[in-house]
Amino acid sequence: MSNNVPRRNFSQIILGRPLETSAAPHQAIGKAPALAIFASDALSSVAYATEEILLILALAGTIYFGLSIPIAIGICVLLLILTISYRQTIFAYPNGGGAYIVAKDNLGELAAQTAGAALLTDYILTVAVSISAGVAQISSAFPEVQPYRVFIAIGLIAIITIINLRGVKEASTTFAIPTYFFLGMAFLMLIVGFWRWATGTLEPVTGTVMIEQVVRPLTLFLILRAFSSGSTALTGVEAISNGITAFKEPRSRNAAKTLVAMSSILAVLFLGITLLAHAVGAVPSEMETVISQTARSVFGEGVLYLLMVAATTVILIMAANTSYADFPRLAALAAGDGFLPRQLTFRGSRLVFSWGIVGLAAVASLLIIIFQASVSALIPLYAIGVFLSFTISQAGMVVRWRKISHMQPGEEIVAEDSITRHDPRWRPKLIVNGVGAVVTGIVMMIFAITKFRDGAWIVIIILPSLVWIFFRIHRHYRAVATRLSLAGVTKSVTARSVQTLVLVDNLHAASIRAINFALSTGQPWSAVHVSIDEKRTADLQRKWAERMGDYPLVILPSPYRSLTQPLAEYVQQIRQQDPEAYIHIVMGGLTMETYWEQALHRNSTLAINLAFRHIEGVAITNIAFQLGHEQGQINEDEHDGQF
Amino acid sequence: MSNNVPRRNFSQIILGRPLETSAAPHQAIGKAPALAIFASDALSSVAYATEEILLILALAGTIYFGLSIPIAIGICVLLLILTISYRQTIFAYPNGGGAYIVAKDNLGELAAQTAGAALLTDYILTVAVSISAGVAQISSAFPEVQPYRVFIAIGLIAIITIINLRGVKEASTTFAIPTYFFLGMAFLMLIVGFWRWATGTLEPVTGTVMIEQVVRPLTLFLILRAFSSGSTALTGVEAISNGITAFKEPRSRNAAKTLVAMSSILAVLFLGITLLAHAVGAVPSEMETVISQTARSVFGEGVLYLLMVAATTVILIMAANTSYADFPRLAALAAGDGFLPRQLTFRGSRLVFSWGIVGLAAVASLLIIIFQASVSALIPLYAIGVFLSFTISQAGMVVRWRKISHMQPGEEIVAEDSITRHDPRWRPKLIVNGVGAVVTGIVMMIFAITKFRDGAWIVIIILPSLVWIFFRIHRHYRAVATRLSLAGVTKSVTARSVQTLVLVDNLHAASIRAINFALSTGQPWSAVHVSIDEKRTADLQRKWAERMGDYPLVILPSPYRSLTQPLAEYVQQIRQQDPEAYIHIVMGGLTMETYWEQALHRNSTLAINLAFRHIEGVAITNIAFQLGHEQGQINEDEHDGQF
Repeated sequence: MSNNVPRRNFSQIILGRPLETSAAPHQAIGKAPALAIFASDALSSVAYATEEILLILALAGTIYFGLSIPIAIGICVLLLILTISYRQTIFAYPNGGGAYIVAKDNLGELAAQTAGAALLTDYILTVAVSISAGVAQISSAFPEVQPYRVFIAIGLIAIITIINLRGVKEASTTFAIPTYFFLGMAFLMLIVGFWRWATGTLEPVTGTVMIEQVVRPLTLFLILRAFSSGSTALTGVEAISNGITAFKEPRSRNAAKTLVAMSSILAVLFLGITLLAHAVGAVPSEMETVISQTARSVFGEGVLYLLMVAATTVILIMAANTSYADFPRLAALAAGDGFLPRQLTFRGSRLVFSWGIVGLAAVASLLIIIFQASVSALIPLYAIGVFLSFTISQAGMVVRWRKISHMQPGEEIVAEDSITRHDPRWRPKLIVNGVGAVVTGIVMMIFAITKFRDGAWIVIIILPSLVWIFFRIHRHYRAVATRLSLAGVTKSVTARSVQTLVLVDNLHAASIRAINFALSTGQPWSAVHVSIDEKRTADLQRKWAERMGDYPLVILPSPYRSLTQPLAEYVQQIRQQDPEAYIHIVMGGLTMETYWEQALHRNSTLAINLAFRHIEGVAITNIAFQLGHEQGQINEDEHDGQF
Repeated sequence: MSNNVPRRNFSQIILGRPLETSAAPHQAIGKAPALAIFASDALSSVAYATEEILLILALAGTIYFGLSIPIAIGICVLLLILTISYRQTIFAYPNGGGAYIVAKDNLGELAAQTAGAALLTDYILTVAVSISAGVAQISSAFPEVQPYRVFIAIGLIAIITIINLRGVKEASTTFAIPTYFFLGMAFLMLIVGFWRWATGTLEPVTGTVMIEQVVRPLTLFLILRAFSSGSTALTGVEAISNGITAFKEPRSRNAAKTLVAMSSILAVLFLGITLLAHAVGAVPSEMETVISQTARSVFGEGVLYLLMVAATTVILIMAANTSYADFPRLAALAAGDGFLPRQLTFRGSRLVFSWGIVGLAAVASLLIIIFQASVSALIPLYAIGVFLSFTISQAGMVVRWRKISHMQPGEEIVAEDSITRHDPRWRPKLIVNGVGAVVTGIVMMIFAITKFRDGAWIVIIILPSLVWIFFRIHRHYRAVATRLSLAGVTKSVTARSVQTLVLVDNLHAASIRAINFALSTGQPWSAVHVSIDEKRTADLQRKWAERMGDYPLVILPSPYRSLTQPLAEYVQQIRQQDPEAYIHIVMGGLTMETYWEQALHRNSTLAINLAFRHIEGVAITNIAFQLGHEQGQINEDEHDGQF
């Protein structure tokens, strides 16, 4: 066979030339670029987490904005627990220890699918939230684009989708640039800000209008709500544990160091921005983000301010982009296990999981349209999934340590994704992961309860539904495999009789072609005409008598103008006479050169296929008659399809 | 064949049981119900015509609102000319003399297609304008629904569409009720209103806020613009000339009398409402229609007011409904002549032109969404088409009288749609139609110029484009007919060799079925496997060797993971060896019981069909394997399709 690269067509102009299966690359990267690549999701959340805390505190009044600082400290404590817990996972699963794999390995399918559903949901929300937050940055700097936020957000998703369909080397070091640009700008803002604060030259923010709300008393519930909102800052912390294989050897050690570095940076940035926002008196506003207000106060309305907004926008878009790697990969993993449609495991022409990418883009766009690109409206849906997957993953680790506690030195359990070895220090490690599981579980409960009415109920309904659907799909694939299995079947293939029916609408070159084919198979055949219009039928009968003479022509009346129903009845009549026979229905289709021409004709092939798909032993043949070019000529341009 | 009524399925629950072709009824109706049926379009326009005049005059200031009265009188003069002209058409074309038929008969295809494009465009706009105006009535009485106007409008279109897909007896006398209800309410309003005016008890309207506009000087251009807006009152006047066959004998005489009655009522209502609106000082407002303001002043805010609003809403919806009869009928006429897609001539299960109905609903809904259900925004697009068709129709009549002027007494020209006879009084009749043609032509020009910037330019671009498309379609159908024609072909059908390829993905019950069928045709065959995943291929080869032994299995490598491209290359190789042979590709598809299950499988039948449709002499056979039920059993439930 020829291995020529297929010719370029429209989709190839958009997506690039197809890549060979053997072209899948793999390169290991150092800690500095790895930090940049895996941290964008986690770090970008500092762009909105502080604002979301203030938005809830504002319900009790601006006098309580100072509470944002202890809340941020609490979240940093949570981050510390998570980091220590995940460090252990990284060493335990050097081939990548996402919650799905850890759960499958230790807790069974139900936990694994629950983690899968939680993570897939959150990857979608990461796209929706990050893009909305990115657009909010743009509209902070350029308020005139405010009315077009949804439009801009959908446009950005479209661009990211096309880039990912083209295929992105996830480990590309060019991705490091925006992350370090953001880190540079953010730390510059903190340094300048705190310097001006210390020197008393930091001016309060001006010209913002706070969102108007009815003031209510400050309750513990409200504080917990604010804490929940802020804990969205922790989404993305698990990213490194998924991507250990991208690191240079010693993989686990390098990944662990990168995780600690990322968490430290995240803690400093989050606390710093929260303090600075409080110092300048930033308020949650419809028109300008808190981070934009803070940057504007610190830098003034100059180039540095615009650079800070640009950096924030870019890192948020990068964060959305990480979901484009994570979502299709996890979906393909679950599909490979038979819990999601198998199409999700197909790699497209550019070796990417196209269905996963398109699915992610579609659902995220839908969310953005429904929630009008509002970060605050999306936040209550976000992070439950992440915290659920944190809990499942840590609980899985606890089970793993318990398994190890029963092992002898030197003993090994080799599973699909991991090797479990004896570890004398299992007890403190079990405690660490146990604390991680309990704490993230509690945070998840707090989140679900305090955000329930704001939208968390949607996720609480969707997650179990998804898990149920995953198992339904799994059951289906198993049932199909059983039904198709040849195990125990010993009968070999045998010829049966074939009754050929040629569908004839009118007597012309295309129907002659179909008749010619039926004749060529050498089996008995008759022409069949479904009579919808009496004049046409009479016309056909006359032409048939003239040209086809002795060959049989069966006329099936169709009083209700259905093409398929009289034919189905006729097929059943034949079946009654010869139940073993194959019924072979031959149709001559017309192929036009363009789609608009094709649309001008009754294209009944699909209709006939659909109508007979439930009838046993019916073969439906379509033989196309090409109108556009001379007979015998083969058009080489259009028979490449990627499905 | 059995003529049993097909079983009920979902679409039948919505649309009702199928109707036999022979069930198409025809009943003649009297003048009173005919007036009601044909007049709703014309009469309903009084609901917005006055308001649209005032809206333009408001640009110069409310002091000029009095000008609405001379403008309305001018429009009534135009109505008089049109009525006399169309009276002559009714007598000349007793089988229905729409502009399309009159133009085809006298002016040729270009004029006929122009009239067709103009009328089809205006039927769509009638739906959009009438429904929007109907919703404006509802939101006048219940301002709380104001934000949901587009939503309500689309809902109404959906309901009308379903009713029309079920099939509506156009001549049903039940349609008379809403028209007479509206006439009763409208005349009651005029009588009470003028009585209160005469007695000095008519109070000016209160509580309305006029649309704010920058005031500009009153110019002739502005007056002509107001006149154009008001002339939308005349849309629908041509309806009777289309529907003459629905009348009792003597058809033409009865139709002519009904036309005169309708025009008189329209003139009285339009003038009356315009006068009364001026008397109560109604102003164009975003919140309440002028007719609602007038009714509120005359009746007070009681039951009579609500009845008047209800009657206006209902007549507007009826007016939209008339387009549901006119549009599909004219589209089917043009499609029958080969200028529109032939599918438009197919009658659905309920004997209606389903494609035309759905197409009309789709475009009208789109217009309502784009123009946010605003009557004033839609008006500049409306009525150009109607006036163009008036002009063409009257010009056609002029040509006809000139033809008649050359005829001898007793001479007859029998054409497809008309019989032309000598008429000694041709000269005055020619003058009447000539005046009609010139006057409507001038009004159309005024409309196009004064409304150009407001939206008329859209129609001025769309109309010629449509005509061009109609002729493109016509040329296509003629070319296909030539290409398919067997004229001059004397060769009879002859057998050629058939090379069968069975596509095998994996060896299981479904592929065994396909192999069995290929074997049964008795032609040489080989199994072909497109290798996308090496593991699967090795697995297949092992199973094949075990079970199929000697039968040939061809493996086609697919480095770019395309299913169709390696297959297409292989087919071409075979073709080169035997250019005359049919290539017969056999596939075993899986049929699931439900659509969601079907969606979980790679359904490549369509992909293969699309990929090979441009290659000559390739027959593609799909033989379905039914997973849902036991082998050999025929499922009778699902093979009914209406296409």
